[in-house]
Amino acid sequence: MRKDKVHIFDTTLRDGEQVPGCKLDTSQKLVIAERLDQLGVDIIEAGFPISSPGDFQSVSEIAKVVKEATVCGLTRAVKKDIEVAAEALKSARIPRIHTGIGTSDSHIKFKFNSTREKILERAVEAVKYAKSFVEDIEFYAEDAGRTDNEYLARVCEAVIKAGATVLNIPDTTGYCLPEEYGAKMKYLKENVKGIEKAILSCHCHNDLGLATANSISGVINGARQIECTINGIGERAGNTSLEEVVMILRQHPDLNLDTGINSKLLYSTSQMVSQKMGMPVQPNKAIVGSNAFAHSSGIHQDGVIKKRETYEIIDPEDVGVNESSIVLTARSGRAALAYRAKKVGYELTKVQLDSVYDEFLKFADRKKEILDEDIHQIVIASKVNIESIA
Amino acid sequence: MRKDKVHIFDTTLRDGEQVPGCKLDTSQKLVIAERLDQLGVDIIEAGFPISSPGDFQSVSEIAKVVKEATVCGLTRAVKKDIEVAAEALKSARIPRIHTGIGTSDSHIKFKFNSTREKILERAVEAVKYAKSFVEDIEFYAEDAGRTDNEYLARVCEAVIKAGATVLNIPDTTGYCLPEEYGAKMKYLKENVKGIEKAILSCHCHNDLGLATANSISGVINGARQIECTINGIGERAGNTSLEEVVMILRQHPDLNLDTGINSKLLYSTSQMVSQKMGMPVQPNKAIVGSNAFAHSSGIHQDGVIKKRETYEIIDPEDVGVNESSIVLTARSGRAALAYRAKKVGYELTKVQLDSVYDEFLKFADRKKEILDEDIHQIVIASKVNIESIA
Repeated sequence: MRKDKVHIFDTTLRDGEQVPGCKLDTSQKLVIAERLDQLGVDIIEAGFPISSPGDFQSVSEIAKVVKEATVCGLTRAVKKDIEVAAEALKSARIPRIHTGIGTSDSHIKFKFNSTREKILERAVEAVKYAKSFVEDIEFYAEDAGRTDNEYLARVCEAVIKAGATVLNIPDTTGYCLPEEYGAKMKYLKENVKGIEKAILSCHCHNDLGLATANSISGVINGARQIECTINGIGERAGNTSLEEVVMILRQHPDLNLDTGINSKLLYSTSQMVSQKMGMPVQPNKAIVGSNAFAHSSGIHQDGVIKKRETYEIIDPEDVGVNESSIVLTARSGRAALAYRAKKVGYELTKVQLDSVYDEFLKFADRKKEILDEDIHQIVIASKVNIESIA
Repeated sequence: MRKDKVHIFDTTLRDGEQVPGCKLDTSQKLVIAERLDQLGVDIIEAGFPISSPGDFQSVSEIAKVVKEATVCGLTRAVKKDIEVAAEALKSARIPRIHTGIGTSDSHIKFKFNSTREKILERAVEAVKYAKSFVEDIEFYAEDAGRTDNEYLARVCEAVIKAGATVLNIPDTTGYCLPEEYGAKMKYLKENVKGIEKAILSCHCHNDLGLATANSISGVINGARQIECTINGIGERAGNTSLEEVVMILRQHPDLNLDTGINSKLLYSTSQMVSQKMGMPVQPNKAIVGSNAFAHSSGIHQDGVIKKRETYEIIDPEDVGVNESSIVLTARSGRAALAYRAKKVGYELTKVQLDSVYDEFLKFADRKKEILDEDIHQIVIASKVNIESIA
């Protein structure tokens, strides 16, 4: 059976960048955008053009350099936003405008002081106006997670008629449970007239640690796009982790879903984004943490050599992790040092690691990158008793 | 309707500690165990007593100091392991022995070179033997995630008859999907004779980022214990995050489930474990990351003052986060600095944060903790143009 494709909509450069102190400049964004294009994401959300001249410039420059992916710009359901986004996207090979409005009763009442009917009108107008500039229009129903399903279906139906090609159903506050979020997708799939003309999209936040599970529940129930970021970066507890949803679909072939991502670039892309944003990845982060495969060598030695499927762990090489890819610099933590030290033969106790780490920092301050041969010198300089190393 | 209690089984000191370079000494473990007891966890898995004299000593000391929680020690289904665990636990007010064996066909064949019948016999014998020392016996069926349900039900039935009070159903490799894991719990709940005499327990690993969702799916389907760690710490991608499952149950009262955790101690406990293990918590970690609530003040200003439920975000105070609880030391990252700087009035751009961070590190090297009044000095010393601060 041929697998259904789930589109990967990367929003590292838009929603992901909304983190205090992590703003990227245009040149950094360009490097990341080119890498996302190589990684094989289907859509790059490059920014929110009306928000600032800098963001306009970033979207505009990204539109010029991206070769494969669709380039998308965010707007509110406001004419000026849409005009500015269309202008920023004019050099894109495949442009998309992402427009929308809050649809939950609390948003309608307290944010817009409006009514359901008026919000529906504004949604339709925004989509029609955006459609006068580009073909591909994604509509977001902000706070869809808490929007009444029947009204949400009416909004979806109306914006599809107006020309929307993608329907983004965000769990804005990150509070849905997977079953709940999946049920919402199923309801829309079954109750929106014309739904076959549009793609349903999952946009989940991680406030309760459920963004990945909610997105997977969404695609199991009919969505075919996931909005996500590298390392799950984003404001508060962040967005859905791109690397997690990609590898779940790959490791569960029974779901008959797959993405176009070149997984071998996941680890290096994770590192690039972490470094450019100055946002560390915790060692026990799934897929891309420095410890994510730390145990696998032990297991390999113990049993997998005989029969790999006994443990069915992801092969680290499939996500681009090999010994030398855990790069050690003055910014590296103990976990990364312990990992690399183990690879060259030192299994350090915590006390030993403390001494070696102090020495490591002195070395790392002088050298751009610490190589395997340096580790031996560092261990010797740290005066840890090598005989006693565990 | 009275809520059903979900027991929190904390394994920070056993499964959580299996991280390269993060081994804790007995005195550190005692401090953490006392804190876990105050936090209100129901069971503290204190270690694996036969694994080393140090671990035996830790379990034994923890057994003496814990006032409320059950203290548990891990064993294989081996007589000597059980005897040593019983010895280590002899001072515990409420001791539990946690014994078990691999039950998936691949474990039976490739790890034990045995048969289903022989493994079942060993399981029963181990539980009976443990029962001769203590009343409360938890049995783990290693690799239950990939164990045939019918055989797993037979094993559960037999160990309950032998005296097991808790049945741990681990997803050892971290590969289950939430629906799959929940369905397994449901199957056991419906098909194991005598299941009303035991508690089903979720033990999930986070290799695909699904540990939290799998545990929640488990309790929705009948389990009443979750095995978890502070910060989701553990080997590879770690275990289920205690703080996430606790807050999900609290934020979803419709599930009619709750724990006995004092959530106001979550943030400080997270910080304590992170510091003692030398394992950083990434800023966008759900519930306990330094950015987890970074946006909430903005939202408060915008709309929540009028109507809090508009956004229904967890009140940071409920998990023990307030401005002063984000402690700044030389180990703090940019995110924490940006957060605290914002609280005292500086909204820094990335370029500004770079300069201020360099200055911060110089200050922090000289002072144990950076206070609000220091931040003003640091900003001035960094020569950032205060006028131009965003």
